[in-house]
Amino acid sequence: MKIKKAVITAAGPGQHHLPLQTLVSPNGETKTAIAFLLDEIFANGMESAAIVIAPNCERDFSNAVGEHLPKVTFIEQSDPLGYGHAVLCAREFAGVDRILLMLGDHLYLTQSDESCLGQFLAVANQVEGSISAVQPTHESKLPIYGTVGGQRVSGSNGLYEVSTVLEKPTPTVAEQELIIPGLRSGNYLCFFGMHVINPAVMKHLAESDSTPLLLSPSLNATAQNENYLACEIEGIRFNIGEPHGLLRAQLGMALAGESRDEVMASIIELIAMTR
Amino acid sequence: MKIKKAVITAAGPGQHHLPLQTLVSPNGETKTAIAFLLDEIFANGMESAAIVIAPNCERDFSNAVGEHLPKVTFIEQSDPLGYGHAVLCAREFAGVDRILLMLGDHLYLTQSDESCLGQFLAVANQVEGSISAVQPTHESKLPIYGTVGGQRVSGSNGLYEVSTVLEKPTPTVAEQELIIPGLRSGNYLCFFGMHVINPAVMKHLAESDSTPLLLSPSLNATAQNENYLACEIEGIRFNIGEPHGLLRAQLGMALAGESRDEVMASIIELIAMTR
Repeated sequence: MKIKKAVITAAGPGQHHLPLQTLVSPNGETKTAIAFLLDEIFANGMESAAIVIAPNCERDFSNAVGEHLPKVTFIEQSDPLGYGHAVLCAREFAGVDRILLMLGDHLYLTQSDESCLGQFLAVANQVEGSISAVQPTHESKLPIYGTVGGQRVSGSNGLYEVSTVLEKPTPTVAEQELIIPGLRSGNYLCFFGMHVINPAVMKHLAESDSTPLLLSPSLNATAQNENYLACEIEGIRFNIGEPHGLLRAQLGMALAGESRDEVMASIIELIAMTR
Repeated sequence: MKIKKAVITAAGPGQHHLPLQTLVSPNGETKTAIAFLLDEIFANGMESAAIVIAPNCERDFSNAVGEHLPKVTFIEQSDPLGYGHAVLCAREFAGVDRILLMLGDHLYLTQSDESCLGQFLAVANQVEGSISAVQPTHESKLPIYGTVGGQRVSGSNGLYEVSTVLEKPTPTVAEQELIIPGLRSGNYLCFFGMHVINPAVMKHLAESDSTPLLLSPSLNATAQNENYLACEIEGIRFNIGEPHGLLRAQLGMALAGESRDEVMASIIELIAMTR
């Protein structure tokens, strides 16, 4: 079954204003981060989206989503009980379908002809079950990412069968449990912030009683019980919630777009003026 | 009399969301553009501020001004009738006092030991009457700025007695009426976006019936009728409302701050990844 529903989580503490920040797209349009995400979601076959938000944020988000409002459902996460809990808030919206999961504080810039989400869904729509977007990532960044271990699917290009998922592993644990044959030494497959999950993941989340409730343990359980894949994406991920993350995203978009030369000139001017 | 009241205009069409965008200060604090302005205003001796906003924006701005809320008054400009009209909306707030005028879509980065606003108020508090901050600007930028003609005050460093104010003059008109002896050829004194105005300017605005109502004609009338000064500022102005203006402001702040090296590394990485 083709994936037709998306869930965007945007309820993290201190994160509620992030999707409302504006950026200029590579082709010169100014829009909010949440509008960037929704544009990409609806350009890639989704028919509806739910955004999980913190209490009292609906008005701001409604203003920020623009033309997509009729296709968007807002779901309030009443308490900040973790990423897995935010996902679980969308269980009813998901129903019996596989859903696309995106992070409200992440933006993507492709390094191929196809958008990052387009690359991911092209694979996800061909397979059954849950699948996560991943990227080979240097071990110095393990403390911030969920990381998977597994085996390359033979004959595939960047598709893996996942055997283990660990949230923010230490380098020692990663070396023991998460080495993927064929990746450059010191690199691991870390989550890229896009997943397709099936109802089994929601069920596992609902049966967990950890606080905070994370997603990775439920994905790990999925890896033990059924076929769970990971797929490499060619592109750049921007976490706009980290220090200077919004700046990096804006800079990346500007440098990838029509105004590259102009932005390069600004950069050099500002480097000189602020020395 | 020391200047103690500030008016920030933030009601322009399409401008209402701009002061709510967040930036990272040179010392690493994330705050909204309007909070940047208010921090600087209250750090430089102001006791109260009025923000002129478009209808239905008070809630967003209240959330964005942070700790300064008790010292801030919101004034609604019911119709977008021009910058001069926005200023006039604050006439009652101003009363009989000289007030500082700032633009809600401008941010500043100093190139001296003193902040841009600090440089300006140090001069403005020493003199009587109205005074505007200016910067020598290449004639290619005349189409976007108010520009002054006049004479350097003898013995001063960057202080001018203004004789003429023209809004967005053509280069031909500028060459005939606005040449300032001593400036580099092809450069004119353009407004920097900070003014101190006295009640006479408000009176002239109130008696004008142009639509849109601009500020420059009333400043020009002031120049004809009384002593009106202009003062050069050492710093960079960012108009966050222009394309990539927010990006330039964030980049300038980041390059001027503690994270300069890290941001330089990001810039180079992104230039390479987006080529």
